[in-house]
Parts: sequence; C-alpha cells; structure tokens
Amino acid sequence: MEKKIAVILGDGIGPEVTQQSIKVLNCIAKQFGHRFIYNYGLMGADAIDKTGSALPEETITTCLDSDAVLFGAIGHPKYDNDPTAKVRPEQGLLQLRKTLQLFANIRPVNTYSSLEHLSPLKSQQLQGVDFIIYRELTGGIYFGKKEVNADYTEASDLCSYTKTEIERIAHLAFQSAQQRKKKLTLVDKANVLETSRLWRKVVQEISKEYTDVTVDYLFVDNAAMQIILNPGQFDVILTENMFGDIISDEASVISGSLGLLPSASIGVSSALFEPIHGSYPKAAGKDIANPVGSILSAAMMLDHFKLYEEANLVRAAVDWTLNSKFVTKDIDPVNYYFTSTIGDLICDYV
Amino acid sequence: MEKKIAVILGDGIGPEVTQQSIKVLNCIAKQFGHRFIYNYGLMGADAIDKTGSALPEETITTCLDSDAVLFGAIGHPKYDNDPTAKVRPEQGLLQLRKTLQLFANIRPVNTYSSLEHLSPLKSQQLQGVDFIIYRELTGGIYFGKKEVNADYTEASDLCSYTKTEIERIAHLAFQSAQQRKKKLTLVDKANVLETSRLWRKVVQEISKEYTDVTVDYLFVDNAAMQIILNPGQFDVILTENMFGDIISDEASVISGSLGLLPSASIGVSSALFEPIHGSYPKAAGKDIANPVGSILSAAMMLDHFKLYEEANLVRAAVDWTLNSKFVTKDIDPVNYYFTSTIGDLICDYV
Ligand SMILES: CC(C)[C@H](C(=O)O)[C@@H](O)C(=O)O
Ligand SMILES: CC(C)[C@H](C(=O)O)[C@@H](O)C(=O)O
Repeated sequence: MEKKIAVILGDGIGPEVTQQSIKVLNCIAKQFGHRFIYNYGLMGADAIDKTGSALPEETITTCLDSDAVLFGAIGHPKYDNDPTAKVRPEQGLLQLRKTLQLFANIRPVNTYSSLEHLSPLKSQQLQGVDFIIYRELTGGIYFGKKEVNADYTEASDLCSYTKTEIERIAHLAFQSAQQRKKKLTLVDKANVLETSRLWRKVVQEISKEYTDVTVDYLFVDNAAMQIILNPGQFDVILTENMFGDIISDEASVISGSLGLLPSASIGVSSALFEPIHGSYPKAAGKDIANPVGSILSAAMMLDHFKLYEEANLVRAAVDWTLNSKFVTKDIDPVNYYFTSTIGDLICDYV
Repeated sequence: MEKKIAVILGDGIGPEVTQQSIKVLNCIAKQFGHRFIYNYGLMGADAIDKTGSALPEETITTCLDSDAVLFGAIGHPKYDNDPTAKVRPEQGLLQLRKTLQLFANIRPVNTYSSLEHLSPLKSQQLQGVDFIIYRELTGGIYFGKKEVNADYTEASDLCSYTKTEIERIAHLAFQSAQQRKKKLTLVDKANVLETSRLWRKVVQEISKEYTDVTVDYLFVDNAAMQIILNPGQFDVILTENMFGDIISDEASVISGSLGLLPSASIGVSSALFEPIHGSYPKAAGKDIANPVGSILSAAMMLDHFKLYEEANLVRAAVDWTLNSKFVTKDIDPVNYYFTSTIGDLICDYV
C-alpha cells in the first residue's frame, strides 16, 4: 500500500516526538511492504517565525494532497500573555481544522495497570475505565464571530451550531458505541444554552436509528464531576467543541500520563493525528519528551488506512515497552530512557 | 442585630436542608441575642408547579426587601429532557442572579482529614488543598442573546463581557488573595476567545494595583487537569461564568463529598447563600440529605453580616460533627444519622 502523509512537526517537543513516529512508521512499512511518502509542512509558532503566518498556503496544499496528516504540537508562551497579538500559533491549527473539515476529534481514554501509581485517582476509580470522547471540532464558539470594540472595553464570541454539524458527528459516535459497550452520553448545558438544546434534540432524534444504544444526558458541570468520581460508567461521550476541549483534557489525567494519549481528528476527506499533549517548550530539544502519544496517534492513522494488523502491532510494541519499564522521564524520573531510545525500542519490537 | 432573610426552599432536597440551616440560625440568634426574620419565597420547579412562573414577582420583592437570601436547590428532571420546554426551573435562578446583580459566586474548596477516604483522589493530591474560586455570575454566555430558528435547525448563544463586569469581580478576587496566600490564577481560553483576551487584559491592568499578589494564567483545558493533578497549587482562582460552572463543580469532588460544600453569591446590594449540591429529587423527603453544605452557606451569610464569631462557631460545630462521625448517609452509608438529627446536633453544640 502506498500512502502520502503530510507531516507537521510544529512547536516545542512536537518535532522530536513526531520523528519517533516516523521511525516506527518506516519500520512498519519495511515489515509489511508498504510505502509511506512524507511531505513536510509548517504550522504554529515555528511557521510564524519562519514565514509570518501560522498556517502558510503551502502547508494547506500539502495536507490536501495527502492521505493523512501527522502532527506534533502547537504553541509558544511568548504569544500567550499578549492579549492584543495579531498572529497566534493556535490560529494555524484552528484554520487547518476548518479547511480540512476535521469535524470529529476522537480521544480514547484508558488505563495501564503498570502505571496506576502515577494516576492522581485512587485505584478504585480506575477499574474498568475504557471510554472514548467524540468532540465536535469545527463549530461552536471556536469559530463563531468574534468582536472587540476599538477601546477594548467590550468583547464577544458567538457560539452557533447547525443540525447538520451535530448530525454528522453524532452518527460517528453512535456507530462507535455500537462497536463498543453500546452506551452514549451526550454532554451539554441544555438547562442554559440554546445550542445545547439543539444538540439534545438532534441526538434524541438520531438515537431512534440506533435502538441498540442506550443514550443518557449529562450537564457539563456534572460531567466534570463524574469523569473523576466514576469514569468507569462511560463508554462513548459525545459533546460540542468547547466542552470537549475541557472534559477531554480533564479525562486525560486519569491514565497518569498525558504523554501517552493519542487523538484522531476525522474529516470529510481528510484526517489528522496528533498526541493530546502540548508543546512543552521547556522540555524541547532535550530528548526527554514521551513519544508514545505520537506513536499511538500514528497507530490510529494506520487504523484509518485500514491497516489494522499494523496498528495492533504498534500498540503491542507500546504495551511491551511500558510493561518492560522502558519509559521516559515523565513516567519514571529516576530510571528513564530517552525519547529517541523509546522510538528505537518500539521499532526493534516491530 | 436584626436581619431580614429571604428563604427560598426550592426543589428536591432544598427544603429539608434549608430547614436545618434555619434551625442553626435560630440557635445562633438565641445564643447571641440577634433577631433573624425569615420571609419565604418560591423559585424553580416548585414555583412553576404552584404559579406557572419559575420566579414569581413576589419572590423578587421579598429578596430585594431582605438583607440576604438563603436558598436550597433547583431543578427537576422532568424539565431536562424536553429541549423545547417553554419554562425551566433554572431560569428562575438565572433571573434572580441577574435581578439582584449577584456578580460574584464564591466557592471555597478544602479538605477534611477525617474524610480523605471518600475522596476520589490519592492522599498525596489532597495535601495543602485550600483555595477559593471566584466565578463571574451575571455575564458571559449564560446571559447573551439566544437564538433558534423556526424549524429548529440552527441555534446560537452569544458570550459577551464588558471591562466593567470583569473589573468588579477581579477586585474582589485580588482582595481575597491579599488576605490569603497572595496568588491569583486567571482561568480563560485566551488562545481562542476574544472575551478571554479581554479578561486577560483587564486582569493584567488591575494586577498593577495589587503588587503583593502573584498572578498567573491558565487555559481552561489545562486548569481542568491541574485541579486534579495538583490542587494544592491554587489560592484564588478567578474565571468567567461558564468556565467557573465547570471547574468549580470539578473542584468540588476533591473534598470527597459534594454535600459539604457551601457557596456565596455576592452582588451590589444583595447576597445569596446556597449549598453547591443540586436538588437530588431521588433523595427528597427521606431525611437523608446532607445539610452541612447549607449550614456552611448560612455561616458564609453570617460572615457577610460581619458576625464572624457566630460564623466561626457554626464552622466549629460542623467540624465537631464530622470528627465525631455524626454524618449523613452520603458520608457513611452504614452508620449514618438523619438530616434533621445533624441539624439538632449542630444546634446543641452551638
Ligand atoms: C491549541 C488549542 C487551540 C486546542 C483547542 O483548544 O482546541 C487544544 O487545546 C486542543 O484541545 O487541541
Ligand atoms: C442550575 C444551573 C443553571 C446553575 C449554573 O449553571 O449556574 C448551577 O449549575 C450552578 O452552578 O449554580
């Protein structure tokens, strides 16, 4: 099989973790006789520094011309504390999501028994945790009209949703639930927001087509509690963009290490894969970042290519490193291996 | 001292917990020679059932005519799953917040060593947890223009803030930090939202008046992680309405029991005190609900009346019941006391 992969290394630790994924993908290609062609593009603070734009036209072309996008991380603190900055790294990512119509961000949440000691939660809370979050990624308040008046005394952001935007991700989430534990939880704030009431209405309607899936509804404030109190209750969580941003990051603490978690963003004709962690500029260039989140994102990409055997092999390799205590500094600050070594070990296993 | 207190019992377990607070307030009054005059008003599902309105005019008058409002809980599931319902219980509370201009919702978060076993977090996470959340309560997406088209295929909610709205709560939060550990954390999403950038700008400006307070900024998704990973890092958290709703509920799980946590909502000339828990219709009328959240809210009301000695006595009484294992069913499902018994015991101590 031949696949074109757009690679965006991005900011901070983005480059070094993504390089490990490419290493692993190359081993998979060799092993299974595939051909992966990488085309590089710029985005984020890195792109601003080099081109003045957070998402140069060329990168968009490269992505549109590829079968999938492998992405590192975005963001640099020098842009965060300047509320009046004109260009921001994150704009690049938001614009790419919109351009590629990556409407569904998918994040699996599970635990590793060998890492239970790292979780902030008691072991009781961790039993049976295995859920997946479907976050809408191209609508809502992220992309609504933004206004600020000239003397900077008033600002607004519009949150809006259409039935069609809700339907397409809801179908994906229901179909995922059918393959899993057949439960779907919609997280919203329908007691306050009109958009949430639309979400609830559309999901109620669609649920009639998936009679084998049990649906329940949680207000986002309650969901923020339940994810910590009893994460084992969830199977598929479906939610809008901003709530998904918050609760998926909250849920990411369960496993004990942010560095392990992958994500996929699925669009109409495109898909992007990235670890959920940020750019951690402080760790950049030190060969200490955890590449597993990126490598498992690459595995989700292989799934997307329908290369299931290959994807499972990568996951098995990751499990093996974790069980063998081949881990980076974030997991074991004393006996740790370097980013590049973990990449090599996973390759060797493959 | 003579004080007029508007009492809104509300829905579900609201009435039975509020009655315990009144019991305790009466004991305080007797002990210290004060006079508390209670005027009752309706709000929520209870008010809809009785009057058709979630917040009858009379209730507003009663509240405006009082020195403070003591409130139980709001909400009934029969309104939650009907996205097209015309009247909702929660509208009553939102309208009351707006009418009384209760712009600052204040929630202390701390832990009780005798209840550590109930927390979902490991004991390591619980050390040194003592922070307070200032949530803006009368602006943002809760009160922005809401629109839905006729065939229910598109909906929107507007989030807007003015400099003045941010300033008034920011000053309260900075002043609180000055009395505490001198640290303030603004939680926002300034990398995406225009309103968040306004918050950041205004807080940066105001911080110059409070040079003894260290300010830091956290994106809300990161905050949702930090509250679980390392809650001991916080002192005063300041945030807008919707983010405050989510992270204050999330933070409420730390202590191990939602039933213990109080809140104050401070306005220009009015103030409302309520436990943070909901109406739990399933527990209503069984004398099993935890009255401590309401009783500690009454203590915050005494603080508001500048009756500090009285407030501290109530808190000491609560500590004594917890340490003596006089607790309700949510805390000890086997050896538990009834709601009304806890009220009596706290009174006896007082
Ligand atoms: C970088 C930022 C714009 C982004 C978001 O909020 O969507 C990130 O937090 C994420 O979740 O992918
Ligand atoms: C009942 C609801 C409208 C309310 C809110 O979201 O503000 C509640 O969750 C709260 O936090 O007081």
